[in-house]
Amino acid sequence: MINWNNMDTLASYQALAAAEKVQLAAAMTGEGGADRVKKYTVPMGEGLNFNYGARPVNDEILAKLAAFAEEAQLAEKFAALYNGEMINTGEKRLVLHHLCRGQLGEAVIADGVDKREFYVGEQNKIAAFVNKVHAGEITNAAGEKFTTVCQIGIGGSDLGPRAIYLALENWAKVTGNLKMKAAFISNVDPDDAAGVLCTLDLAHTLFVLVSKSGTTLETLTNESFVKDALVNAGLNPANHMACVTSATSPLASSPDYLAAFFMDDYIGGRFSSSSGVGGCVLSLAFGPEVFAEFLNGAAAADKLAASSNLLENAAMLDALIGVYERNVLGYQNTAVLPYSQALSRFPAHLQQLDMESNGKSVNRYGQPVNYATGPIIFGEPGTNGQHSFYQLLHQGTDIVPLQFVGFKNSQMGSDVVIQGSTSQQKLCANVAAQIVAFACGKDDADLNKKFQGGRPSSIIVGDKLTPGSLGALLAHFENKVMFQGFAWNVNSFDQEGVQLGKVLAKKVLAHDTDGALAVYSDLLNI
Amino acid sequence: MINWNNMDTLASYQALAAAEKVQLAAAMTGEGGADRVKKYTVPMGEGLNFNYGARPVNDEILAKLAAFAEEAQLAEKFAALYNGEMINTGEKRLVLHHLCRGQLGEAVIADGVDKREFYVGEQNKIAAFVNKVHAGEITNAAGEKFTTVCQIGIGGSDLGPRAIYLALENWAKVTGNLKMKAAFISNVDPDDAAGVLCTLDLAHTLFVLVSKSGTTLETLTNESFVKDALVNAGLNPANHMACVTSATSPLASSPDYLAAFFMDDYIGGRFSSSSGVGGCVLSLAFGPEVFAEFLNGAAAADKLAASSNLLENAAMLDALIGVYERNVLGYQNTAVLPYSQALSRFPAHLQQLDMESNGKSVNRYGQPVNYATGPIIFGEPGTNGQHSFYQLLHQGTDIVPLQFVGFKNSQMGSDVVIQGSTSQQKLCANVAAQIVAFACGKDDADLNKKFQGGRPSSIIVGDKLTPGSLGALLAHFENKVMFQGFAWNVNSFDQEGVQLGKVLAKKVLAHDTDGALAVYSDLLNI
Repeated sequence: MINWNNMDTLASYQALAAAEKVQLAAAMTGEGGADRVKKYTVPMGEGLNFNYGARPVNDEILAKLAAFAEEAQLAEKFAALYNGEMINTGEKRLVLHHLCRGQLGEAVIADGVDKREFYVGEQNKIAAFVNKVHAGEITNAAGEKFTTVCQIGIGGSDLGPRAIYLALENWAKVTGNLKMKAAFISNVDPDDAAGVLCTLDLAHTLFVLVSKSGTTLETLTNESFVKDALVNAGLNPANHMACVTSATSPLASSPDYLAAFFMDDYIGGRFSSSSGVGGCVLSLAFGPEVFAEFLNGAAAADKLAASSNLLENAAMLDALIGVYERNVLGYQNTAVLPYSQALSRFPAHLQQLDMESNGKSVNRYGQPVNYATGPIIFGEPGTNGQHSFYQLLHQGTDIVPLQFVGFKNSQMGSDVVIQGSTSQQKLCANVAAQIVAFACGKDDADLNKKFQGGRPSSIIVGDKLTPGSLGALLAHFENKVMFQGFAWNVNSFDQEGVQLGKVLAKKVLAHDTDGALAVYSDLLNI
Repeated sequence: MINWNNMDTLASYQALAAAEKVQLAAAMTGEGGADRVKKYTVPMGEGLNFNYGARPVNDEILAKLAAFAEEAQLAEKFAALYNGEMINTGEKRLVLHHLCRGQLGEAVIADGVDKREFYVGEQNKIAAFVNKVHAGEITNAAGEKFTTVCQIGIGGSDLGPRAIYLALENWAKVTGNLKMKAAFISNVDPDDAAGVLCTLDLAHTLFVLVSKSGTTLETLTNESFVKDALVNAGLNPANHMACVTSATSPLASSPDYLAAFFMDDYIGGRFSSSSGVGGCVLSLAFGPEVFAEFLNGAAAADKLAASSNLLENAAMLDALIGVYERNVLGYQNTAVLPYSQALSRFPAHLQQLDMESNGKSVNRYGQPVNYATGPIIFGEPGTNGQHSFYQLLHQGTDIVPLQFVGFKNSQMGSDVVIQGSTSQQKLCANVAAQIVAFACGKDDADLNKKFQGGRPSSIIVGDKLTPGSLGALLAHFENKVMFQGFAWNVNSFDQEGVQLGKVLAKKVLAHDTDGALAVYSDLLNI
């Protein structure tokens, strides 16, 4: 029997809030600090480790977090989710993105089919299509191979697949896995489509239209933009487009597409990178085998996330320490700081994943909650961020918990030795140094040069950013967000907050406005 | 006589803090809302207008902000700055970036020269060099024209120039002003340089190395990386590199460069887009005339920022409303949301500009302040953000002030009509709708579908994103950040918070570590 209770009604949460706080700067100094960093680490799958030595916890707080996890039934809730209970209560939907990458529990039957079989079936359909494209069996009208894939989609149909593509593009180049270059069109701003199109060799570009409903305004508008460009170039759009949509959408049976691949209502946009939304474009770019490695990496992390032992469950630990930082310590933001240029857009994807999932003020029953929920997420790659916003992180008036990511090895293997070290060593040295600088600080008689320290962080360390480790990394954050939603007792899987803007935008376009909205419409010359 | 006092010692600030708050949702509803939006607007130069109808102020609070501006002597402080007083007290330096774009006040003599003449002289040197490159008088060893420019720099030598390049690239394409494509290498991650280099036609690429000190680790490392690649391609690096540095740096007189252009210590990295740091790469990309238009736009905004009339000074207004939101209303973040794909990296530049300038805990005399200073800045272009993190902005438990930017016209002029409107109209309709949705909200018996409103925003509206309007936009934010620093009584022009990480990274590379730092070094295999 699962109880869905607000966090502040749980005795274990009250005990956690009352526990003595860790003085992080002191705890991280000297041999005690070394011991913490050695001890507070947990495997995440695919060679990744989650090290939380510099987060503001100790054994006592970890024990209280474990009690909280138990009373909040986090493991049971995840099991209910992957066994097919209706977790998305707002939209009355199952939540099944994990099933794209493995069978964690019982068979889930919905809409009269085994959903694992359905997702695998779509993966196989995509793989067969992709193999034909790569083999030159599906070509343009002139019989020439497609060299580029361009995804048309927005939100979850853009941010995740784009971040993953960028994360693996250089890896694919050096390993011989870059089958097709990828481009992305997302914004309704006409300069987005026009700007991307003028960089493409249209005759050799295959477009993938992604819209679950088949009604997303931005995406349909950009599809039309692209079709005009193809026609103007003397090409037949039907030879240049595939789509990923739901089986019930108007796109599903349209003759306008070379192929249609299906998703369903049980996978939200921000969790859809593992479905055909990511699968089609990424399989075209890197081959179906590489996408399968990515899914296997995610599946490995999912399996670890199913553990009810908090200390062996990196996603649950990361989630609960985050809740502690947010609600007990009162920190409002979280920065995601990958020391990997390939992960340049990964923070933007996590921004959607986290803020759209848990940026809610009501619980899953629609009742107001009395505590802060999802934090604001932002981030840029290091070392670049060090020369940008780290000043505030070190010496500003607010404390921001930090999530570092680092890899021992580069993807491309080209390097240079300057002053006795490689660039990769410099990169890794910097992230190690930053963690300690944030945690321990440094005293100085000149207060402008003083670092107060006590600024918490964790680091995920991997050997190399590969399809497998990237899959594990993504799944870690998806599962972290899910566990935080369980802890806050919110529904992480709907997004009612996006509706009002859509309704008002339609009014503006229909010139059905008054008051302030009419004045803004005039200002913008609509 | 200027007094540099902490904000909380000013009677006008206490009066501001005690003033009755605006109930924004009510104020923005009905004809009262329309009146606010019509009234609360101020020109920013180059056809831009700053509209603050949806910020949480009214005539009474504006009067109190004006009194605060007067008591804090904001206009006098700006005048002192542009007249050459030593405003950067921490580093004992003048602050002269405005002089790159115009002479706002008296002649500033430093280092024995008129600094306006010095900056104009460097602009002219750059223009002469660039014109020779474009004319094919400076070429590669084979006598062929350079087609691409690649900037090597980090922080302010990267974020601002890159954001500006991306903002104007498509405009330049359609207006015939794209003289050379630009690329950027910044991160010490070796995959950054390796990844960019493998997309370049090295024989036709001119590199611009940017480092004021000539000692920035990332930049020198990447220079070496690039030189190796040139040599491996059978090219002589000295034929392919120019540099922007200070006259006293080791680079200044090196024979390794085709040309050296100079900056000085009076322009901080994050304010250096108007100097040779932006000027060289942007003039190569777009021509010196286009860069001059950009500077003229910035100069127009600077001139307006010099007004002591708060209601005519958009930068000062934006700054003080921001201080009110930060310190009186307690909002910790600010989101920058340009409805323009071309401004995709503009928020990342503002993130550095703002957070590195005002993320401080001590005043300009090194004494702790008792109030919050610089906010956390993040943002992505709309409409993309609507499908990402806007859920939290609308329905999350924290209120985030928003800075929208919108343009009536697209840059490229290609568009498509779907459902009776162009994409540009849809883009503009969406930003108008969002402002009202955030401010007014919407009631609903289902609290999951309720929008509480009261979420403040402003919008900067322009006709089109051009070099001139972009210059005005950039200067607006630079001046806003400066005025906020004056209000908080911090030194916005140093960045001592970046030092500790550098020191510890050197220790790691020297294997001179103990405690936690040694363990992290091991984890990362350094």
